[in-house]
Amino acid sequence: MSETDSSFPARPRGAAREARKARRALPPAAPAFLTRRLAPYEILDEEALLRIEQQADQLLEEIGMEIRGDAEALELWRRAGATVREHCRVHVPAGLARQLVSASAPAQFTQHARNAARSVEIGGRHSVFAPAYGSPFVTDLARGRRYGTLADFENFVKLAYLSPWLHHSGGTVCEPVDVPVSQRHLDMVYAHMRYSDKPFMGSVTSAARAADSIEMCRLLFGGPFLEQHCVLLGNVNVNSPLVLDGEASRVIRTYAAANQAAVCVPFILGGAMGPVTTAGALAQCFAEATFCVALTQLERKGAPAILGNFLSSMSLRSGAPTFGTPEPALAYLAIGQLARRLGVPLRCGGNLCASKVPDAQAASESANSLWPAFLAGAHFVLHAAGWLEAGLAMSYEKFVMDVDQLGAFHTLAAGLALDENAFALAAFREIGPGRHYLGAQHTLQNYERAYYEFELADNASYEQWSEAGSRDQLTRAHERWQKLLAAYQPPPLDAARDEALRAYIARRRSVLPDQIS
Amino acid sequence: MSETDSSFPARPRGAAREARKARRALPPAAPAFLTRRLAPYEILDEEALLRIEQQADQLLEEIGMEIRGDAEALELWRRAGATVREHCRVHVPAGLARQLVSASAPAQFTQHARNAARSVEIGGRHSVFAPAYGSPFVTDLARGRRYGTLADFENFVKLAYLSPWLHHSGGTVCEPVDVPVSQRHLDMVYAHMRYSDKPFMGSVTSAARAADSIEMCRLLFGGPFLEQHCVLLGNVNVNSPLVLDGEASRVIRTYAAANQAAVCVPFILGGAMGPVTTAGALAQCFAEATFCVALTQLERKGAPAILGNFLSSMSLRSGAPTFGTPEPALAYLAIGQLARRLGVPLRCGGNLCASKVPDAQAASESANSLWPAFLAGAHFVLHAAGWLEAGLAMSYEKFVMDVDQLGAFHTLAAGLALDENAFALAAFREIGPGRHYLGAQHTLQNYERAYYEFELADNASYEQWSEAGSRDQLTRAHERWQKLLAAYQPPPLDAARDEALRAYIARRRSVLPDQIS
Repeated sequence: MSETDSSFPARPRGAAREARKARRALPPAAPAFLTRRLAPYEILDEEALLRIEQQADQLLEEIGMEIRGDAEALELWRRAGATVREHCRVHVPAGLARQLVSASAPAQFTQHARNAARSVEIGGRHSVFAPAYGSPFVTDLARGRRYGTLADFENFVKLAYLSPWLHHSGGTVCEPVDVPVSQRHLDMVYAHMRYSDKPFMGSVTSAARAADSIEMCRLLFGGPFLEQHCVLLGNVNVNSPLVLDGEASRVIRTYAAANQAAVCVPFILGGAMGPVTTAGALAQCFAEATFCVALTQLERKGAPAILGNFLSSMSLRSGAPTFGTPEPALAYLAIGQLARRLGVPLRCGGNLCASKVPDAQAASESANSLWPAFLAGAHFVLHAAGWLEAGLAMSYEKFVMDVDQLGAFHTLAAGLALDENAFALAAFREIGPGRHYLGAQHTLQNYERAYYEFELADNASYEQWSEAGSRDQLTRAHERWQKLLAAYQPPPLDAARDEALRAYIARRRSVLPDQIS
Repeated sequence: MSETDSSFPARPRGAAREARKARRALPPAAPAFLTRRLAPYEILDEEALLRIEQQADQLLEEIGMEIRGDAEALELWRRAGATVREHCRVHVPAGLARQLVSASAPAQFTQHARNAARSVEIGGRHSVFAPAYGSPFVTDLARGRRYGTLADFENFVKLAYLSPWLHHSGGTVCEPVDVPVSQRHLDMVYAHMRYSDKPFMGSVTSAARAADSIEMCRLLFGGPFLEQHCVLLGNVNVNSPLVLDGEASRVIRTYAAANQAAVCVPFILGGAMGPVTTAGALAQCFAEATFCVALTQLERKGAPAILGNFLSSMSLRSGAPTFGTPEPALAYLAIGQLARRLGVPLRCGGNLCASKVPDAQAASESANSLWPAFLAGAHFVLHAAGWLEAGLAMSYEKFVMDVDQLGAFHTLAAGLALDENAFALAAFREIGPGRHYLGAQHTLQNYERAYYEFELADNASYEQWSEAGSRDQLTRAHERWQKLLAAYQPPPLDAARDEALRAYIARRRSVLPDQIS
């Protein structure tokens, strides 16, 4: 099912000039996506997996899932064999949703980037890391917490472009609240196109904005290319429990109809939008996501789609959402197995945390979220960089700290090298007992590539560190992102396409009202 | 091979009074040790494991391992079939070291605590978490970094006693540098006995100090009990590469001869004490540790022992040791598999870090070290709390932050509950689509035990958190350990045994010179 065609779309005009510019573009400093030699970590046996699938089937058949305000989606389900009662509640015969997904949704697909070297494989043995998504606030050490602006949005697109371990430019990397809501999507999609050449996500707040996102991709990639290839993801939340509102279902169908990939994400905080026990919330999550991915296939057989999972816990003291807890970790591992059985790519995890600052709490919670996502074999890891404060704020410092962590998982994913050089028998013979390896020939030949080194880790002695100002990681991260942004150079973009995009945006802006919210 | 006898040792006198005191002692707030329903994460296949074993065999046979200054140990190896050349280099026929271990070392054993409810199982499906070990410095937010004292030592013993997720009191929780080196071990062992009732570790700096530690255990537990049961661990470092100094080998033999458990730990920073490539360093580590565990069996067949692993990476910029990197993580996972094949308990991991402060770096590095230790199925996790600055400093704040993290792994280890209550079908029927679960009967019945909650995580809103002083986790941790210490109450200790211990210490102190170092 894998698309492996990574050829750049045909160029409409200015091909020679664009080719010159492309040659000037730097090659990616790291692989375009992560490929794992390590198998995922499996914690459930066949019987357990069957029980969860059966419970998910039962939820869809007996309780049903409502689609509120999308008659066409209801009709698609009716024709597929579901029963619709009480106007909008879809009761799906046991197993049908899973069958619809297994029958035609691709287990792996390529999301093409405008720089073909940046195209990513989503599914199989691959993982794609994307920045955090959707925060109204941004924060940094010097300026503090404030509403996000388009300038912040562009900064995060630039930082993602500059980060070797982020494979994806993401979507709403922060809300640019200085732009009217009705026009915001145009500026966001344009920023991804202009300031990065990595793959990105389109708008999902309405079907019309999703259509705008797709139209802009048609201008960037060319219409025929877009028809045949996935160039855009749209991240759509389910209104858990067991409701898909009509706008969301139309957005899902808009992406699918254009052969673009909807990421279908149940949003469940246990005890609020689902049961407080993990197995129940997990079965619900799997039922809702499978239902939505099945809808993509009813809209267009073979359209790419991603099974999403955003499942977390809550504080017993306050009811606030909590992150990095062990229950969601177990749910990640379980849903990884379920997604592989179903044969559809999985989104889960990220560097999630509840902390208000990029301190030890933020780092622990993030690691406790990223490790299980990695172990679960998650194919698309949204919120992999910058996430702070339960997703309410995007942090400049946390962004570069998270990216540093993502790098290490590339080494982990590659597993243990077991060739002759790795075993180093000649070095043992050279050195023998009781002597050190610092000057050994084998050490000199290998040390430069031997270990992953965190950019933002300080490994100096206490004395050296004190002399340099006793700076913690947060302080060093503040310096780091500013340096990165100062050195930013945009990737080349064909002037004619840029002009076409700008003209499209101007035209749309003129007909869209300046809605503030 | 498991010892399951958890009966308290026979009381020499004052039994009735002690029984009354024991009844006043609080029951442990958490299990005495972690038990896992999740299987370890395995990354190597049979062929890969055989290759590492073969390389380890070849290192011991061809290169050999030196024992410098312990003629008895050399003689034990000679009699077992090894060849000794160049005075002290032991060449072990391929496979012999592993055979000696497999033949008689217990795969699981009980380390008894003076409070039987605190005895721990080491091996099998169990993990035991112990505090960090060996730092000359201590640090806290108010007083800063300074040399450790006996008062600090006692504080950390008390904090470990009060921490529900630490199963073990550890050993040299910091160096009490205000006590002469020659007498320090007496005060350290006594502090573990007096201020905690969890299991602990004895001295390993010389065979005489190891013997003192064992003698003191004889007084606490009774001689006949000690002869039959493991009550003491001794953590012995190998002088990697491929050297065991005579003092270390005598300490190993002293513990084994008394039926107490030596933890045999190669100390390898890749590129310095072993090859810079992980497979080579791993094979070396496995060879050295197996050699030492085999020595325990040559000394006393069936003596408990633990296969250790302290393998880390180094900075390419400075040559400083680095922690939380992916290469040691892979080595943990591999050695977990090797230890299970060999049938001997494994020590690895901990909350290791290179950071000089308990900041985000410290937390990330620690999580990146603890996760693979957990996944590897490590049975004894030393350095699980307090470790800072590559082990040079013990941090009060990091200690309580680490303990908080350890708690979560208990939930993770238990795996996903898949019973009827967990699936919550009745709750789905009660709530249906589009309504929340906050007031559902199922939520009310389950929410108190539903989620692990980190003591030191702040999950409040930004506004609440700001009003409360915008405190990061480090600041909250500073408050936490002080509150814990203020509320500390010692566990009851039989006065006669206490007196006997004090008399022994006074006697030994009178004959030991006041060596400063």
